[in-house]
Amino acid sequence: MSDLEYIFHPKSIAIIGAKSQPLSATNYFFLNPLIDFGYEGNIYPVNPKASEISGLKAYPSILDIPGPVDHVTCGIRADLTPQLMRECVAKGVKVVHLYTSGFSETGREKGISLEKEIIKIARQGNIRVLGPNCLGIYCPTSKISFKSSFPKDGGNVGFLCQSGGNSIDIVELGNARGVRFNKVVSFGNASDINEAEILEHFTGDPEIKIIVGYMEGTRDGNRLIKALQKAAKIKPLIILKGGITEAGTQAVASHTGSLAGSNVVWESLFRQLGVTQVNDMDELIDLVLLFQHSMPPQGRKIGIIGSSGGSSVLLTDICEKENLTIPPFPDEVKSKLREILSEEADPGTTMRNPVDLASSTPNPTIFSPILKTIADYNGVDLILIYINVSFGWDNGTNVLATMQTESLIETTRELDKPVAVVVRHTGIPESSTFAFGIQESLLQAGIPVFPSFDRASRALDRFVRYYEAKQHRK
Amino acid sequence: MSDLEYIFHPKSIAIIGAKSQPLSATNYFFLNPLIDFGYEGNIYPVNPKASEISGLKAYPSILDIPGPVDHVTCGIRADLTPQLMRECVAKGVKVVHLYTSGFSETGREKGISLEKEIIKIARQGNIRVLGPNCLGIYCPTSKISFKSSFPKDGGNVGFLCQSGGNSIDIVELGNARGVRFNKVVSFGNASDINEAEILEHFTGDPEIKIIVGYMEGTRDGNRLIKALQKAAKIKPLIILKGGITEAGTQAVASHTGSLAGSNVVWESLFRQLGVTQVNDMDELIDLVLLFQHSMPPQGRKIGIIGSSGGSSVLLTDICEKENLTIPPFPDEVKSKLREILSEEADPGTTMRNPVDLASSTPNPTIFSPILKTIADYNGVDLILIYINVSFGWDNGTNVLATMQTESLIETTRELDKPVAVVVRHTGIPESSTFAFGIQESLLQAGIPVFPSFDRASRALDRFVRYYEAKQHRK
Repeated sequence: MSDLEYIFHPKSIAIIGAKSQPLSATNYFFLNPLIDFGYEGNIYPVNPKASEISGLKAYPSILDIPGPVDHVTCGIRADLTPQLMRECVAKGVKVVHLYTSGFSETGREKGISLEKEIIKIARQGNIRVLGPNCLGIYCPTSKISFKSSFPKDGGNVGFLCQSGGNSIDIVELGNARGVRFNKVVSFGNASDINEAEILEHFTGDPEIKIIVGYMEGTRDGNRLIKALQKAAKIKPLIILKGGITEAGTQAVASHTGSLAGSNVVWESLFRQLGVTQVNDMDELIDLVLLFQHSMPPQGRKIGIIGSSGGSSVLLTDICEKENLTIPPFPDEVKSKLREILSEEADPGTTMRNPVDLASSTPNPTIFSPILKTIADYNGVDLILIYINVSFGWDNGTNVLATMQTESLIETTRELDKPVAVVVRHTGIPESSTFAFGIQESLLQAGIPVFPSFDRASRALDRFVRYYEAKQHRK
Repeated sequence: MSDLEYIFHPKSIAIIGAKSQPLSATNYFFLNPLIDFGYEGNIYPVNPKASEISGLKAYPSILDIPGPVDHVTCGIRADLTPQLMRECVAKGVKVVHLYTSGFSETGREKGISLEKEIIKIARQGNIRVLGPNCLGIYCPTSKISFKSSFPKDGGNVGFLCQSGGNSIDIVELGNARGVRFNKVVSFGNASDINEAEILEHFTGDPEIKIIVGYMEGTRDGNRLIKALQKAAKIKPLIILKGGITEAGTQAVASHTGSLAGSNVVWESLFRQLGVTQVNDMDELIDLVLLFQHSMPPQGRKIGIIGSSGGSSVLLTDICEKENLTIPPFPDEVKSKLREILSEEADPGTTMRNPVDLASSTPNPTIFSPILKTIADYNGVDLILIYINVSFGWDNGTNVLATMQTESLIETTRELDKPVAVVVRHTGIPESSTFAFGIQESLLQAGIPVFPSFDRASRALDRFVRYYEAKQHRK
């Protein structure tokens, strides 16, 4: 295991710049979450103007703290940080995380030299530095977080993120979709602990099964390439690269001071190394869902259970655009389906693939045998099911969709192929809240749910492509 | 004005196959909506086995109805329809809408000849036929609808749709996004009244300002091309074409029996004719929103007000991928912005474009002057603003986002450039419900709202492209 494991398990944390106003940024992101998560080590607010903060004894400086301090989170002004670093050396601190910004990301000489000075002092005292210009660590098993509302239960995803804001967004998007994280590191300017080292650690961390990252650039390309290559060999590795266009590169420069580099280079590099590159945060979470829940697919032939004729046409188009194959069902499968549907099938029901249940769906008992029939057909590798919350909606609820969901959960347990579900709603709050409930039930049963045809088919394509490439590399 | 106007204003409607069970499909789609919308003409349920249905006197056959019948909606079995058509001729009915399926879309000889027979009888009696295999007409000003929950207020969008299911989905998606329709025609197999004729009518209809369509194929390509060309010259015309892939073409064949044709042909045709082609239902509504609310843009240079550094990087990448230009603000604009932000700006604030407000946003009074400064800069044609509901979220609400929204509404009134807003939430119901409320306020003020960076930037690109092409055709 990499040397970094200890940074996720400090026995004591000092928050430099904690304030008496509970809504200050430093409290909001660091002090309050430790309290709200029930962090079990010692918490030391440091502020020369306060004697007590949020019910905890405050200290004028880190040197006044009686016991040892493993981890320091710094929220004070950039020009005050060299003095703090010297005190941290004196105190024997192990890790300093700098939330403070105003360093190399400003592009100005002053900030750049300040960052160099900080690192120089840190090295003298064997201190590891996280940041500056970042939110640091979220590790639910250690009860450390940078937002109080993050999930308190952990998962199997390791997430390294160059942007603080994006790290919050991705954890929250994941939370709503049933994705839970084991360790998240927002690393900002990466002046000491950088993306490559975190990646190396996640690669060796047995608690982490899937690695995701948001990266803007790197200062140590060689080490990063080696780290990406090793990680991708062992675990699914999904990267959202910020700064892939010319304007985006400029935005990166003023955000974390990184050199974003050419996207063509990054894209071909990622492809060669087996890294799955995604286009946005939604796509990142979509793909994690599949890796988290689904067994490896045997191929890209997809069987679809649709809801209506028109939506089945659109779903077919979108799946094919994403290079999934929609094989027409052979006669033997079609006749089995026709048998199941016999009593119910209205003339609008198609059995070709997609099976378009149309007005047959009001009888949910047929849903399970239809799903089984398709799953049993060996010409299909993946199954996609479309639930439209609007169809059968009645007075704020949808008995049909609920029964379909139950039947789906029951039947999917017995299947040996990946199953994904698209749940769509009208966009009105009561419809979206209902859809969220269905999604929760499906996710709890380990069935990944997507909000639209294109997001589902794109994720399935990338998921299949991962295993195809892996096979190819063997 | 085209001859079709009368089909939207029947004085009496007979529903053939209405049942005593209120949840039968024919009641659900046709009888109940007329009652729920308060249709002011005569409603005649026709069913030989009932004397009263939903409080209305029922008749054994259409010939037993005392007064004239303008419009017939048919929900009985396909094999019974020729007899019905003969009765409609005898009764002097003007329009027969066949919800019934089992005709040419089955691909079977029996259905194909049945459809021909129906049309032959209709022609003998000067009856116009809508369908078969469709949901017919939604025209809120005439209080006619095929779903009770559709909005009762009308708008300025005309929508022709070959699929019944997709027509419901699109009206409902539009409803949640503030899009209101003037006339919707679900036309199914298009055996008589077809997409070209509806399009011709919408083109001349002064109440319709924007035309949208879902089309799978056509049986009269020449007429359709002329209709598309004429419509696109006069009004924004947005088409979602179903069956654009090989598998999609097959799905179309079994859905509405249309020949979908080659997508390459359709794509180049649409481009030549000035028709905007979209990829899915969401994109269709996204674009309608812009045409509905925004003034024509002068170009594709975009000014962005972002929320955090990382999201601004992603937003920049996505805008540039969609061929929008993100010009760096010149020094004069940057120094104005710096002046406004002076007191508030933390070192993470970037003023380059995107203006990344970062932690400056807690002061909402700066929002309006920032927006004005960017709008005043003549190097920018469009403005995109990002509101992240999660940023500033506190106990089920977000005072910051609410204040930003108010300020945005107030300021946008004075601007002479299109403004679009991305409102993102975490996906948790209370967050999405709050975001929906913000969206409602913005839409009521005529400001279009999008749920993600890619959807906003794609819609803006297509919107600009429409005016570029129009300019080019002049």
